[in-house]
Order: sequence, then structure tokens, then C-alpha cells
Amino acid sequence: MSKYGIGLDYGTNSCRSLLIDLETGEELGSGVYHYPSGEMGILNDPENPHVARQNPKDYLDGCVHIIRAAVEQAAQRCTEFEAADVISIGVDTTGSTVIPVDMKGQPLAFQEEFRDKLNAQVWLWKDHTAYREAELITDVAKKSRPEYLAKCGGIYSSEWWWAKILHLKNVDLKVFNAAFSFVEHCDWLTAELSGDTNPLTLKRSVCAAGHKAMYSDAWGGLPDKEFLAELDPELADLRDRLYDRAHPSDRLAGTLSKGWADRLGLREGVAIAVGAFDCHMGAVGAGVNVGSLVKVLGTSTCDITVAQADVADVPGVCGQVDGSVIPGLIGIEAGQSAVGDLFLWLVRHLVPDSYGCDLGEKFQVMGEAIEALKPGETGLLALDWNNGNRTVLTDPRLSGVLVGQTLQTQAHEVYRAYIEATAFGARAIIERMEEYGVRIDEVITTGGLSLKNPVLMQIYADVIAKPLKVSESEQTCALGAAVFGAVAAGYDELSVMQGRVVRHHDRVYIPVPEHVESYDRIYQLYRQLHDAFGTQQWQGNLYNIMKELMDIREQQRKIANE
Amino acid sequence: MSKYGIGLDYGTNSCRSLLIDLETGEELGSGVYHYPSGEMGILNDPENPHVARQNPKDYLDGCVHIIRAAVEQAAQRCTEFEAADVISIGVDTTGSTVIPVDMKGQPLAFQEEFRDKLNAQVWLWKDHTAYREAELITDVAKKSRPEYLAKCGGIYSSEWWWAKILHLKNVDLKVFNAAFSFVEHCDWLTAELSGDTNPLTLKRSVCAAGHKAMYSDAWGGLPDKEFLAELDPELADLRDRLYDRAHPSDRLAGTLSKGWADRLGLREGVAIAVGAFDCHMGAVGAGVNVGSLVKVLGTSTCDITVAQADVADVPGVCGQVDGSVIPGLIGIEAGQSAVGDLFLWLVRHLVPDSYGCDLGEKFQVMGEAIEALKPGETGLLALDWNNGNRTVLTDPRLSGVLVGQTLQTQAHEVYRAYIEATAFGARAIIERMEEYGVRIDEVITTGGLSLKNPVLMQIYADVIAKPLKVSESEQTCALGAAVFGAVAAGYDELSVMQGRVVRHHDRVYIPVPEHVESYDRIYQLYRQLHDAFGTQQWQGNLYNIMKELMDIREQQRKIANE
Repeated sequence: MSKYGIGLDYGTNSCRSLLIDLETGEELGSGVYHYPSGEMGILNDPENPHVARQNPKDYLDGCVHIIRAAVEQAAQRCTEFEAADVISIGVDTTGSTVIPVDMKGQPLAFQEEFRDKLNAQVWLWKDHTAYREAELITDVAKKSRPEYLAKCGGIYSSEWWWAKILHLKNVDLKVFNAAFSFVEHCDWLTAELSGDTNPLTLKRSVCAAGHKAMYSDAWGGLPDKEFLAELDPELADLRDRLYDRAHPSDRLAGTLSKGWADRLGLREGVAIAVGAFDCHMGAVGAGVNVGSLVKVLGTSTCDITVAQADVADVPGVCGQVDGSVIPGLIGIEAGQSAVGDLFLWLVRHLVPDSYGCDLGEKFQVMGEAIEALKPGETGLLALDWNNGNRTVLTDPRLSGVLVGQTLQTQAHEVYRAYIEATAFGARAIIERMEEYGVRIDEVITTGGLSLKNPVLMQIYADVIAKPLKVSESEQTCALGAAVFGAVAAGYDELSVMQGRVVRHHDRVYIPVPEHVESYDRIYQLYRQLHDAFGTQQWQGNLYNIMKELMDIREQQRKIANE
Repeated sequence: MSKYGIGLDYGTNSCRSLLIDLETGEELGSGVYHYPSGEMGILNDPENPHVARQNPKDYLDGCVHIIRAAVEQAAQRCTEFEAADVISIGVDTTGSTVIPVDMKGQPLAFQEEFRDKLNAQVWLWKDHTAYREAELITDVAKKSRPEYLAKCGGIYSSEWWWAKILHLKNVDLKVFNAAFSFVEHCDWLTAELSGDTNPLTLKRSVCAAGHKAMYSDAWGGLPDKEFLAELDPELADLRDRLYDRAHPSDRLAGTLSKGWADRLGLREGVAIAVGAFDCHMGAVGAGVNVGSLVKVLGTSTCDITVAQADVADVPGVCGQVDGSVIPGLIGIEAGQSAVGDLFLWLVRHLVPDSYGCDLGEKFQVMGEAIEALKPGETGLLALDWNNGNRTVLTDPRLSGVLVGQTLQTQAHEVYRAYIEATAFGARAIIERMEEYGVRIDEVITTGGLSLKNPVLMQIYADVIAKPLKVSESEQTCALGAAVFGAVAAGYDELSVMQGRVVRHHDRVYIPVPEHVESYDRIYQLYRQLHDAFGTQQWQGNLYNIMKELMDIREQQRKIANE
């Protein structure tokens, strides 16, 4: 008699489910729900482009829809399947996605009075209204609590917990005062499903807390009141209405309530794991482990690996949190601020229609045009900083660079240069981790680009000089969530469950030795540009850059013509 | 009774004439002749893209056509006009455009045996087959005759006289041996019209000799035999069959022969001035003088001014030749390797069709889009080196740079950045000249961009911080040639003639003080990039560049929104 588990993945515009056989790891059913509120699920303010909110009702309606869809599909596919054999649910969401709640832990947005108030809705991760508050937090922490910043890359972000709450207090005292407490999306959903949303006792995720709320056991949980009072006395008061401990996702957040069991068509008492952020559970679904770095290749990237507890603080990474990915190991998160977005920008704004009449065709034709080029044959070198640099410089106030253009340079060559730039950026992250003792033997990729862009994948393998695997599941986040559900239910060990569900495509991208050699040389030039523009310490001269790019180009063209 | 003069301007694809009233300066007639040979007048070698030759017969057929056309037009426009009152002809041509000739000074190409041989034709200025010979000449001169290089910017070019002749010797000994001597296009044409093309006695232009053949009175004319023998003993032998003295264009090259007078419908004995290169005579036609720099804004630029004889050697300029522009003054020539070409590259290769369906429309729409932008509002900064840097770095092995791109950067903003980059390049030339004591109070522009691109013109005025005038004549080269014809004929002084014919458009581009201030700041960043990438001496850091570009952008957007 098989047992089954469900993983739920709440993204920016939609949520998805995945129902798996916990013994075989087979994916039996899934469902998608596009949030109906606002524009593609996001509530905007026409007068302020920084605003990005969500309607919490979408999360609940979506939950019913995607779980019922997955259950129905599983029943159709597999005659033995019975909904009563679903024993676990795991949940991941975006974050820091913050919900102002009342004393019972219900979103203020559910109250008649606040139904139409943007500030009472869910503050989505990509809401950037709190940039001034983020600066304040960085400044105060730099002076009085540098250890808080050391775990989150040195700069507190407007996307994060405290900045958002403080901004709410600054712009809408009425909503702030009406909020008894605040809950991350991933924590509210697990509490809601288990029927007890008391904000003082609901199980908080260490992944969310550690990355976004400056939580660490090293200093007794959340930041101390003295520090919070420096930001605003109201934040210090709030601390008592938050939490003292946060938990990893192999623990139970609760079990499915009668009410929700009926709505979902599942058995009451199904285990619900503590929630986490999408990329962290996605990393587990993709096969993250000591020695393996998971790289989610999307509009930006999320790079996640794990290391033993004695690992040093790695400067420049986004976060380093005990148990945020795999309990007992330090989760290390890094990222690149723009990858898919960078290519999209290029094709939208700087590629003529001779390459194709729409984005898809332009990408395809350019991909074909660059495939045969050798490393350095374009003569171009770019920095991938159009959206700043998240890791290793943690500096949003950086911008793009392109060097080496001639009067013959064509758009597809620029495209290749930007792909290479993101690959160099990826290498810089890996080298930084290795430098501080983090072992990385292979890279496992997930995300659209890993499946759709083999030219990019080979360039990455050649630049990084490590084999690149591609996750087979297109839903690694929901898969990871399902894994945690099963572990929290006590079905099996995390490592066993992970081994059972994780699958990689047969095609592994293996570095080509000649390409590795060429890229080693070009990467040195990238580092030179990187350090010259991105650090205050660097001193030197860039006279060699253009000459070397020309030398390499001539060499590669000669080889190409032979 | 009015007297008339004709100026002939031999360009790359066509030749043009201008017939003026010498008393009023009025332009009475003109004609154009597109060279019929080859592709747009250029004989190519399908197997070698560096080859660019011309058929000398085109020059003579063109001469008849354009002079007759100008005379006819003048007769139609002006009833008093009589062809017999044409008293002078001035000639300018491209250069170094080298003709292998026989003992009588006739092109080898006119002989049956060589009619179809590319190497026996005219070697057009843009023929780049001699790049290895140019390198050799630079190397040998650096070691044994650095003074030769000091007058031509430090690097001998494949486009110039000695490189071309030596290359002919290296690749086609038969043609080389058949050539008794070699003549610049501008010298051969004046000799031909005067009926005596003896290569040992025909009047050579100091403009051509000084710039391209390393001629200077300071070392007794052409390079000495010892130096030439180091390059190749045959070149040392050739020196005896060249010339000892070259002449400025206020002197007579000869007078019109009976034969040519009949063919052209002019009077025998018409004065023919010593020839010169197009830009140099164009500078005179545009109004060059001490304190005025003439800038020909085309695919690349030619920047010409004059200074008193005691001016220092200005490092980095293309050439500094006594009497090459105005007799008695030092002609100083500089240039930018790509201006119009840079914009054309951008629009061809990196501008989507949302701006327009053809190049013209794209340029127009982008021009409108950038007009309202303030200095620095794009946040971008570029180096104008896609085709190398002619002045002040004299380094063809440089390439383009673009800094400051974000995910919002649009094509027209990049267009503005490249316009600004060329303006900064123009300022660097002017500052270098001023640093060595050359006075520059105003800039006079000619060429297509000066008439067609008012946005560019205002940016140039704001960056250079000097008033920009626009030459009224669209044929400043032919006009300058006509001026020299009249002066050589003894009709009047050069300065008087120049004052009579030179006219500027009423619209003068005056620097806007706020823009000058902003551009002063951005120019410092340009210089920092310029020196970091372009010189070996520079030492430092570029960390400030992106931050300052962002600061300026934010400031300017704030002002724009107020």
C-alpha cells in the first residue's frame, strides 16, 4: 500500500502542486492556479511603481484548486491511488512576503474595513517601497550590530521583513496599529491549514527568519529590543508579539484541520511540514548536498549549497543560515541579480528585427548564430551588472559594462558576451565559496534556461570548469516541499527521500578542455574589470584589456578558419 | 568684367567642380561625376578585402565632365559669364592616393600590358594591403629616425605613400620595375592639365608630401637614402626618381595646356595651383585660421587648424606640416576614427525596428527621443573607439566601451551616449592642442552631420564649451580649391579670397551654461576611462564611475521632473 505526499509551491504569479508516490518518487499529479487578483496576481499602485502587494484570499482559493487538481489527476493515472493515503504536505512560498495579521493570525485584508486598502494586503517580496527604511537598518546595524549584517551579505534589503514593517508604520499608522503581529506567507499558510494561526505560537520557518528577519540562535533569535528601538520604539514593542524560535522544515508545523481536510478532500491529520522559501526547497528537490551547488537559472539566479556547521562566514553571499536548506547543515544562498532578465533586456531593446519578428524567434536565431563561435571569438567582454551585483559584491549601485565593440560587432555577438558575463559572474560566486572552504564538485541547474538554452549551458560548463547537471523535474520547488512534508510526517530520512525523488537529465554538460583554457584567460580579464569597477581596493591599469581581447579574437578566428 | 575660378574636388567615389565669381565669391556652377569603374569607382579584389584601387582614366573623363557642366551652368545662370574669363583652377584629391607612372609620368595603367592589372592602377587612400610594410616602417623609424614619426603621430599607416610603394615591390616586382616613379593623385592631375607630367620636375604638393611621405625641410625633404635602404634598397634607388622639394598650394603647378583647354572649353594658360588633399583645402573653404578649428563631421572626422611657425610639436596629432593648409603657417591635422560610422553601426546592428523601418526613420525617431534629455540623464558613458583612436592616442588597436546600462536602458539612450562619446573625443583633441599652445576660440563644422543633426551639434557645443559654426557651402573642398587657384593666379591674397568666399549659417550653436557644467563633470569620467583603457601610464581605480553616473542621472531626472 503506497503512501503519497503533496508539495505546494507558491510563486509570484501562480501556485502549483505536485503529488508524489513517497516510495517511488514518481510524480502522479499536479495543478496550477493563477492568482486572479490584480495584474497577474499582483496588486499595483498606479502612482508608485515600487508597490507590489497580493490578496491573501488568492492563496487559499489556490490551495483548494491545486490540491484537488493533483488528487484528481493522480486518481486518473493510478488506479490504486486513494486520497486517504496522502499523509503529508510541504509548502514553499516567495519571501520575504509579509502579512499583517490580527490577534487570531488572520490577515487584516480579510476584515471589511481593510479589504480595499493596499497597505493591509500581503507585502510581496518584490515590493520596494521600503528602500529608505532598508538604508536606515543597514546604517544602524553597521554601527551597532555588524554581526547581523555579516549573515546577510552586508546590506539589508527593501525586500525584507523589518524594512517592510517599518515602512508600513511610517506610511500608514492606522493599518500598523491594527496589526497585532506579522507573519511570513510560508508560515501563515502552514498554520492556516493546521487550523491554528495564533501568531504567538504558530511555527515560524528558520529559512525565512534567518534570511530576512536577522534571526539567529547566535544572538538569541530575533534582533534585540535595544537595536529595534534604535530603528523605531514600535518595532521593539512588536518583538514581544512575534516569536522566539524558528524551525527547520523537517519539523511539523501542525496537522491538517477537519475544516481544511473537508475542503481539500484529504484525510484529517495529514502532516504539515514547517514552510520555507521556494529556492531553498527547490534546491532540495534538485539534489543539493555537500559538494553540489544548485543554481536556479531564471530572470535572476538563486545559488544554493550546504556546508558542515564549522564552515566560515563567506563574505558577499546573501545568507548563511543554520538549517535553512537541510537541517543540521549550514544553508548558503547566493545569487546573480540579472540573468534571464539581462538577455530579455538585450533582445527587447537592442536587437534588430532582422533576427526575427518576435522575442522567441530572435532568441532562436541568435542562439544558432552563436553556437559555432569559439570562446573569445566575438572580441567582446561584458559585466553582468545591469541590475547591480548581488553576490559577491552585494552592491545594487552598479551597472553594466560592454568592452570590445568594433564597427563590425553584431547583436548576436553581444548576446554571447552577455551569456559569458553571467557565466563569469557564476564562476565568481563559486570561487568565493571555494576560497572559504565550501566544497563544490558539480553544479545542478534548474529553471527555464537550463532546459531551453543548451548553448548557454555549455558556455557555463566551459567557464565554470565543472560538470553541469540539469534537474529533470520542472517543479523542483514543489518536489522539495513534498520531500519535507514526508520527512516531517516521519515517513523517512531526508537524505533517503531526496535520493528517491531527485532525478537528473541524462545529458550532463561536460567542460571542453580547450574552451576551459580560453575562458580561464578571459575570466582573468573579467575579474580585472570586475575589481576595477566594483571594488575600492583595486589599483591598476586596464591598458591590456582591449589588446588581449583582440589577440584572443585573432587567435580563435585563425583556428576557426583552419 | 568679372573673373572666374574653378575648384575641383576628387573624392572617393566621385569628383565635383565649383565655379565661382572671384570678386563676389558667388557660386555660379558645379558638376558631379561618379567614377564608372569598379564598384562605385573602386576596383576591388574579391580575394582580398584590403585592396582598393582606381582607374586613372576616370579622373580625366571626370575632369572634362565636371568642368564643362560647371561652365554651362554658369553661362545659363549669369548672362555676363564667359568661359574665357575663367582664369584659375585649383585641385584637391584624396590621399595618399598613389599612381605608378612611366618615365613620362603617365600611369602604367594606360599601357596595354597593364590595363587589367590591379597593381598597376591607382592605389586609393583606403587600400590597406600594406599593413605589414607600415609596421616595418614604424619599427625602423622608431629605432633610427624618431623625428620622422613625431610629425605623423607616432605610427606610420598602411594608407600612406612609402608603405604602398614597398608593398607593390613585395607583391608585384614586374609592375614595380615597370614604374619609373610614383605620383600622388593631386600632383598628377595638376601636371596632366598643364601638359607636362615629367615625374622629375612636376610640382609636388607639400600637403601630400609632408603628411604621407615623411617630407620636411627640417631634414632636407624626403627621408634619406640610408633610412630608405633599411626598408629596402630599391626604395633608396627610387628616391632619385622622386623629388627634392614640395610646394604649397598658393604656387603655380603650371598653366592649362592647349590640348586640355580645347577639351575643357577654357582658355589656354589658365593658372593651375599646386594640388593638396581634400580636407586641407576644405578647411580653407570653411574658414580655417589661427584660432579657428575646422571639423569635417563625416563617417570619421578630420580636424584641421593652423598655428604660427613657432608652435610646439603636439603629441598625438596626425600631422603637423609647414604650409600644408595656409602658406606661412603650420597646418595641424587631427581626427576621430569613427563618428558617423559609429552611429551607422549602432543603428544597423543594435536598434530594433520599433524605432522605424529603415535607417533614416530610425535616426529621426531616435533624434527626437534624445532631444529633451539632459546631460547625464541616460546614466551611460561610452568610449568612441570602435574603430580605434586616431587622435590623441594614435592607437588603432583600441575598441569600444559602454558603461552604465541598466535593465531599462533603451537604444536611443545608447545613441545619445555615443554622440556624447564622440563629442568627448573631439574635446580631448582640442584640449591637447590647447595644452601645447595652439589657440582655439571657435569650431567651424562642415560635413553631412553638421547640417542634418542639430541635436548632435548642440551636444558638441555643450561638451566642447565653444561656439560651433556651420559652413554654408556644401562644397567647402572645391571652394577651397577655387580659392587656391585664384591665389596662385595672382588674383588676390589668400586671406582676402578666403574672406570673400567663406560663409557660415546664421545659426551658431552656443554652449548652454548648465549643460557645460554637467558635461565638465561627465568629461572627467570619460577621461578616466580614456586613460585607464588607453594609456599604460594611468594607475587608479574606476569604483567611482558607476556611482557618479547614477548620481548625475538621479540629479538630472529630478530637475527634469520639477
